[in-house]
Amino acid sequence: MDIRRRLGSNLRRLREARGLSQEAFAYEANIHRTYVSDIERGARNPTILIVEKLAKSLGVTAGELLD
Amino acid sequence: MDIRRRLGSNLRRLREARGLSQEAFAYEANIHRTYVSDIERGARNPTILIVEKLAKSLGVTAGELLD
Repeated sequence: MDIRRRLGSNLRRLREARGLSQEAFAYEANIHRTYVSDIERGARNPTILIVEKLAKSLGVTAGELLD
Repeated sequence: MDIRRRLGSNLRRLREARGLSQEAFAYEANIHRTYVSDIERGARNPTILIVEKLAKSLGVTAGELLD
């Protein structure tokens, strides 16, 4: 699977496991809600600094979001 | 450590473990040599598609390059 889709699928799974809506997660991660939505659909190719920001907000490593 | 420096340090370690010069690795990964050098110095913020390309050339996962 393309790394963008793996990221999207992992992000959605981990976000939902924490009971967070896209809005709530976007607010916590300080990222626009539509950007979170795009990433979850695999429609974005974010940089590693963005991946780190997402990972920190979820309390996981960047690798856990990408592998 | 910043994720850009972790990527740089992991990339250099794995590239050298394979006995590859920056030139040889850049050629295999189909990336410009100066870009490889910049990444190893932590001076770039590459996208996840670039990280996947680097990882595949080294036979590791993207997470192994970032964590």
